[in-house]
Amino acid sequence: MSLTVVGSIAFDAVKTPFGERERMLGGSAVHFALSASFFTDVRVVGPVGDDFGEAEYEVLRGRGVNTDDIEHVEGGKTFFWKGEYEWNLNIRHTHDTQLNVFGEFEPKLSNASKAADLLFLANIQPDLQRQVREQCPNVRLAGLDSMNLWIETARESLVKTIGAVDLLFMNDDEVRMLTEQPTLLKAAQDIIAMGPRTVVVKQGEYGAALFDEEGFFALPAYPLEAVIDPTGAGDSFAGGFLGYLASLDEGEIDHGALRRAMTYGSVLASFNVEEFGVERVQRLTREEIEDRYADLRRMTAIEGVPAR
Amino acid sequence: MSLTVVGSIAFDAVKTPFGERERMLGGSAVHFALSASFFTDVRVVGPVGDDFGEAEYEVLRGRGVNTDDIEHVEGGKTFFWKGEYEWNLNIRHTHDTQLNVFGEFEPKLSNASKAADLLFLANIQPDLQRQVREQCPNVRLAGLDSMNLWIETARESLVKTIGAVDLLFMNDDEVRMLTEQPTLLKAAQDIIAMGPRTVVVKQGEYGAALFDEEGFFALPAYPLEAVIDPTGAGDSFAGGFLGYLASLDEGEIDHGALRRAMTYGSVLASFNVEEFGVERVQRLTREEIEDRYADLRRMTAIEGVPAR
Repeated sequence: MSLTVVGSIAFDAVKTPFGERERMLGGSAVHFALSASFFTDVRVVGPVGDDFGEAEYEVLRGRGVNTDDIEHVEGGKTFFWKGEYEWNLNIRHTHDTQLNVFGEFEPKLSNASKAADLLFLANIQPDLQRQVREQCPNVRLAGLDSMNLWIETARESLVKTIGAVDLLFMNDDEVRMLTEQPTLLKAAQDIIAMGPRTVVVKQGEYGAALFDEEGFFALPAYPLEAVIDPTGAGDSFAGGFLGYLASLDEGEIDHGALRRAMTYGSVLASFNVEEFGVERVQRLTREEIEDRYADLRRMTAIEGVPAR
Repeated sequence: MSLTVVGSIAFDAVKTPFGERERMLGGSAVHFALSASFFTDVRVVGPVGDDFGEAEYEVLRGRGVNTDDIEHVEGGKTFFWKGEYEWNLNIRHTHDTQLNVFGEFEPKLSNASKAADLLFLANIQPDLQRQVREQCPNVRLAGLDSMNLWIETARESLVKTIGAVDLLFMNDDEVRMLTEQPTLLKAAQDIIAMGPRTVVVKQGEYGAALFDEEGFFALPAYPLEAVIDPTGAGDSFAGGFLGYLASLDEGEIDHGALRRAMTYGSVLASFNVEEFGVERVQRLTREEIEDRYADLRRMTAIEGVPAR
């Protein structure tokens, strides 16, 4: 099935305890699309400026990503983010955010993008996300990401947008903040009551948990000796997740498929954080993905208790 | 096989957003022993004062725990801890610590306790833990718990003690603090280089991870709608873990058994936090434990990818 992602395309400046990059390709739609591209055809919708050149397009096209709906704004500059991570990589400081062309972004989807079977609304202002959702009435599965900023500044709109999707991706702090519930299980129940059939709670280095009417599934993050740059981990996760689902027939998307999607998401996120930006994913192979999938399966298997 | 635990026996005053208790039975050795008692015979070593009466002994004996080595200090008072948890139960404030008889504790093990096949050194000063370890030269498997206080104030002694055990239980922040490594995988490698064959990293509400020479295993915490009192969760985990191992023959303790031990540990911890202190575990049944074990197995199972 076809997959469209709407979100940011960016240049990132990132400093971590393990090095830094002054300017590299980033943005939620980019990380998502590259990860999803290992499983299915992806179309990216988002704005860029004059500074977005052939080299950047080539990273996406090199992985087969369709860039027809990347909107080039004449005279504009591409979204720019500068941040720094502490030794504890869970703690991140934003030093600079220049919205540039992203500040005026009004998503206009081509017919091809609107016709997608699966849609991912990466983390942007929830009114915009809902506008996109409304342009795609025939989507079979719509996923949504958001963040604390929108819970604080646009809660009502966000709740409405959540009600218009099938699958919510959010990190655990955000899920608690949104629902004011102390446990993830209660929080997920509240979110499911808002509309989505499935809630995926991202837990950073701890892994991820999935809640739906068939129950609970969780898996740890793939253990790495070194995490170099966590930027884009959540979007890579969502890209692996929805990319895998898009590779199935609609009738095959059952609870078991969602568990496999969680595992592929986790695998893609683990590769993403091994190097800066999209450096690792750019030269990733499907075989490496399958190897790590098999590893994760082995790492989480529990035997039954032998009869005594 | 037989199992001895050396640690604190306490009265706790605990306040959480969901209620409070002024004075209830607690302490690391108590939580550990009650959990382990579902699988094997346990002996508790630790000091109590005149305020520790028949009712408290009866909680332990009612679960078949051997209390012969509980040392009653005439004229003394039992260790007392008073603490409060925030809405985010990961954040705990200690309001009062009265060491009382625990301040003068010099563990003297009876021959029966020394003869244990498995030994758990609950979180006490590392010199004392090492003294106990040296009194039990024939132990087949020794486990150790510790905390940030001893990393800060008695690091050298703690590292020596870690070198004298087979299995270390510690939470993820502590493991990072001890090794100054940013990833758990690197931290675990450093700890294994100190001596233990196995490192179990407790991750609170996220679950737990195990590292040994055969690799990595992790599982999520059992999802609960309500967590009432997290006090003793780590010790209940260790009790379920080592209690299960003690129920096996020595030759059966392989990597698969350690995974099952992780799962039992997780199950016992999940029951422990459902109510205050030992209230839930006191009326727990083995059948409830097995049901939740089976649940956790189902909740973490990942299918292989169907051939397409």
